[in-house]
Amino acid sequence: MSASYDVAAIGNAIVDVIAPADEAFLVGNALTKGSMMLIDEPRAHELYGKMGAGIEASGGSAGNTVAGVASLGGRAAYIGKVAADQLGDVFAHDTRQIGVHFETGRLAGGAATGRCLINVTPDGERTMCTFLGASVELTAADVEPDLIMGAEIVYLEGYLFDPPEARRAFAKAADLARASGRTIALTLSDSFVVERHRSGLREFIETEVDLLFANEAEITSLFEVADFEAAARAVQGMTKIAAITRSEKGSVVVTPTIRHTVEAFPVAKLVDTTGAGDQYAAGFMLALARGKPLDHCARLGGLAAAEVISHYGPRPQVSLAELAAANGLS
Amino acid sequence: MSASYDVAAIGNAIVDVIAPADEAFLVGNALTKGSMMLIDEPRAHELYGKMGAGIEASGGSAGNTVAGVASLGGRAAYIGKVAADQLGDVFAHDTRQIGVHFETGRLAGGAATGRCLINVTPDGERTMCTFLGASVELTAADVEPDLIMGAEIVYLEGYLFDPPEARRAFAKAADLARASGRTIALTLSDSFVVERHRSGLREFIETEVDLLFANEAEITSLFEVADFEAAARAVQGMTKIAAITRSEKGSVVVTPTIRHTVEAFPVAKLVDTTGAGDQYAAGFMLALARGKPLDHCARLGGLAAAEVISHYGPRPQVSLAELAAANGLS
Repeated sequence: MSASYDVAAIGNAIVDVIAPADEAFLVGNALTKGSMMLIDEPRAHELYGKMGAGIEASGGSAGNTVAGVASLGGRAAYIGKVAADQLGDVFAHDTRQIGVHFETGRLAGGAATGRCLINVTPDGERTMCTFLGASVELTAADVEPDLIMGAEIVYLEGYLFDPPEARRAFAKAADLARASGRTIALTLSDSFVVERHRSGLREFIETEVDLLFANEAEITSLFEVADFEAAARAVQGMTKIAAITRSEKGSVVVTPTIRHTVEAFPVAKLVDTTGAGDQYAAGFMLALARGKPLDHCARLGGLAAAEVISHYGPRPQVSLAELAAANGLS
Repeated sequence: MSASYDVAAIGNAIVDVIAPADEAFLVGNALTKGSMMLIDEPRAHELYGKMGAGIEASGGSAGNTVAGVASLGGRAAYIGKVAADQLGDVFAHDTRQIGVHFETGRLAGGAATGRCLINVTPDGERTMCTFLGASVELTAADVEPDLIMGAEIVYLEGYLFDPPEARRAFAKAADLARASGRTIALTLSDSFVVERHRSGLREFIETEVDLLFANEAEITSLFEVADFEAAARAVQGMTKIAAITRSEKGSVVVTPTIRHTVEAFPVAKLVDTTGAGDQYAAGFMLALARGKPLDHCARLGGLAAAEVISHYGPRPQVSLAELAAANGLS
């Protein structure tokens, strides 16, 4: 069956609240730099009350990725749960207006739309505290089989391993994708997610995943090894493709038979790393869905990541399709 | 009495929704480029449904100005009305966290927090459609006498001439400021505001205003003259100080006896002009409150405006105090 979408993604639907912060703020609030920590609503209110003034932008890891796919000119669908509130309106608007199919029913009368409080230090690094809110109410019933079966690549967010209901939705999507011969992609999302679910993730990767995205901290945590080289050896053969991002060192693509190392795309000014991994996945997957070789996939991922870290906000602010064309990566 | 605040401002409290747009979008939706149009809630929903994906940021003309004053290290207070909803929470947070005194009571059970839908064309020009929402419910009772009487400069937003209740709040603030010997500043806000209230504004300026802010379109509309030179002659002597901004031509300060012309501060890349006039007023007023000469006031205004037009969003993203120090304008 020919695909209706290049990428269908399932994730925690989240609105980002992004503000500058200094290192002392992270220390004073016991935040681990560069990580994502789950927080409850009282803690979210408390932390928001201490954060600086900022901007709001639709986010969510997989949500950012499908926005990137659409900006690159690809066809994308998204499944995720927001509430029937103002921030839910913002998320739905931003996702649909870029051309992403998004029809998951809103949560009414329950938790508010999920929020990610992102403190960005002067080095551009982001430290995230997420109040999952409505996103945690995603259930298997929200997984539309047509979307999953009609997508070239089904992209699953590691963050979904946390909420039990969402994890069932995740499993349903994987089953549907497998049954219809689609490519299953997974991002590990965060090294704390890996710590919380190490054995479950490893089993899932070995049995279900064709394409794995991870950064260096996540992949070394997954295998409990000390360095990148050991992790790269461990992942080789576990999936068809593992794409490992290494920040300013670029990325490495590992398959059972070959390894590609691709340099990072240069960035004039690093402002905010939020969304870097998400946009890398967007570029990589769209190129893969279009049948490009793996080093081209990694390069397009790197280009998309470079755009998003040059400004505040987790989604592209220019047409990535035009940017790709200008850089010979159409 | 020594002042507790450098600037106290009254304005329409608004959250901005900012998205890129092309010229065809403006034409197709009958929007006059560079203007601010008032719209009702159904029209706001309709237009939002057509706009591109964007970001949200606390705005409101005078709200942006007090944020600029605070970023410059000044002491500022703000009076404006938001609802008890998510966007109201965002506005209150962003205003207080930068150090601005903001304690106006929230509107409960009425309209939602006001929103300004801002479409930014590739030339950086912004075209605004505002649903006033809760902001229009500002009343004279919200004007805290202590704030007004304790401020070196009381700054009033021309937009407040539209809602009748807000206009009464405006008049009360002017009376209090006059009675306590404070400087009264007014911004004309928008040329359509001037068209709607030309005679009322002229009378108010002649009788009450010490410091007038306007751009070229507004000041020529105020006097119904064809060119800047005629407008500059007409305003001379009408107020103690008129500061007229001319975009890339810089600004001109007119007093009964002298005229200062100050060049625009160079900008590496013009991204979004939203907030340029607001930040100019912030820099100008803080310098004036600190007893600086008028050309210094105009230069600090120009520097603050240059920062805000280099990124999306109507408020400073760096410390304007540090930027001013680095440019010899402390």
